Amino acid sequence: MKFTKMHGLGNSYIYIDLFEEELEEKSLGELAVYVSDKNRGIGADGLILIEPSRTEDARMRIFNADGSEAMTCGNGLRCTAKYVFEKKYVENERFTIETKGGTVKATVHPDHSKSIVDMVTIDMGEPRLAKKSIPMVSGDPDREAVREMLEAGGTSFEITALSMGNPHAVLFVENTAEAPVHTLGPLLEKHEVFPERANIEFVHVISETEMNFRVWERGTGETQACGTGACAAVAAAILNGKMQKNKEITVHLPGGDLFITWQKDGHISMNGAAETICEGTLKNRPR
Amino acid sequence: MKFTKMHGLGNSYIYIDLFEEELEEKSLGELAVYVSDKNRGIGADGLILIEPSRTEDARMRIFNADGSEAMTCGNGLRCTAKYVFEKKYVENERFTIETKGGTVKATVHPDHSKSIVDMVTIDMGEPRLAKKSIPMVSGDPDREAVREMLEAGGTSFEITALSMGNPHAVLFVENTAEAPVHTLGPLLEKHEVFPERANIEFVHVISETEMNFRVWERGTGETQACGTGACAAVAAAILNGKMQKNKEITVHLPGGDLFITWQKDGHISMNGAAETICEGTLKNRPR
Repeated sequence: MKFTKMHGLGNSYIYIDLFEEELEEKSLGELAVYVSDKNRGIGADGLILIEPSRTEDARMRIFNADGSEAMTCGNGLRCTAKYVFEKKYVENERFTIETKGGTVKATVHPDHSKSIVDMVTIDMGEPRLAKKSIPMVSGDPDREAVREMLEAGGTSFEITALSMGNPHAVLFVENTAEAPVHTLGPLLEKHEVFPERANIEFVHVISETEMNFRVWERGTGETQACGTGACAAVAAAILNGKMQKNKEITVHLPGGDLFITWQKDGHISMNGAAETICEGTLKNRPR
Repeated sequence: MKFTKMHGLGNSYIYIDLFEEELEEKSLGELAVYVSDKNRGIGADGLILIEPSRTEDARMRIFNADGSEAMTCGNGLRCTAKYVFEKKYVENERFTIETKGGTVKATVHPDHSKSIVDMVTIDMGEPRLAKKSIPMVSGDPDREAVREMLEAGGTSFEITALSMGNPHAVLFVENTAEAPVHTLGPLLEKHEVFPERANIEFVHVISETEMNFRVWERGTGETQACGTGACAAVAAAILNGKMQKNKEITVHLPGGDLFITWQKDGHISMNGAAETICEGTLKNRPR
């Protein structure tokens, strides 16, 4: 079976092309565990299947390294878009990708030969601001959670919370390198106001168009890159009057840069790199 | 650049075939770091180069995931032997491999088609028993270290120490699952009698031909498999009268089984599995 390994900002997956290959549904979880294993498989954060879709230009399914199926992944979407364009499964530079978390619009930015894509823009949709849609349980459920005070570890912290399909709480700090990501991150992730827990972002606004960013992901800990978190950080900075809509913001994540715009139409677009590491053939299937 | 990923008992490396490919000497450390990285490279314990040798049938060079060059590796030697036979770089089933740690003899056991190898035997040479050659600083440097008492953490432990090219100390226990690998391992590894530190093996002799085995590797911690450690464990069991020479002993390691014989000629042979995971092409070089 053929595979491609790709990454976006260090978030790597093994991609299998179901336009060409066939896989049994019942084997998918086991295959994800196998290919993700650095010791006996290839090594990755999970498995992504790129498939034909009945209603959209392509379909992406994503499985975590533990074999469970996930809804979607911004870094995986950019690599999927690069792949389907380079394989000529789509003709246009703008196309749609179906995921378990909904349909997204992708725009690839190919080089002059129109054959290689290094950068991809994904329309991440509208942020949801009402507390009930984050969800956040504190005061009026229909109001936004901008400059809310939360108690954690005996101290008060000002956060701005919103949903990008998943819950985020953003703190503005003076210095991300010294931010208490590993101590405050897990406390706020599990704070009683977040019934589904939350991703916690530590953000330093450098200028009107640039920010430093670190993230504590719920259920995972600190990661090198989180696309929805970077979008949430930009939205929070705009809601706090620190940045403006309709301007491209460069977000410096530990794994690399993302370029994010909260557009006039209300949608947030995320532009970033997608890289192919290797192509190969699996010689053994999981045992 | 083409690569093959193989593993022996879960100890995995990226193999590059320098019978076919060319690499610059100065790029090797950087390449090892890159291919070992699960996030932006492939993911492995390191890089192994399979090369022509001036004096032997083939040459193996091994680089750790941190880019440093290592002497040798039993699990890597089995995979290297499988590779050079399957590629028909050697004609016979017995051949020699040059390493930085010396030349070893390999014997492959191909299937009936003579094209696929699953099991490989490596002649690991003679154990060195004199304390000065381990090295172990305690009493007469010319004597063996069998049933020596060592103090650690306020308790006395009986160990048998010897060298398989690297220093080992073996403890016999009732139950490897409950052995204090993570507490006693680091204490004995750095015990003052071992000036170059030591690998610490916890061994339960099940019968005359079978043992359970766990290992604390110096500088690394507990690992799934250690070929020289399994050889040291069998030698120690024989020196203690628990097992016999010239009988094949099955060693159950966490990563799988090895089959080890202390032969009449004094050499220890290690037979075990070697598996190909995937073959592929690297699309990007390290940046």
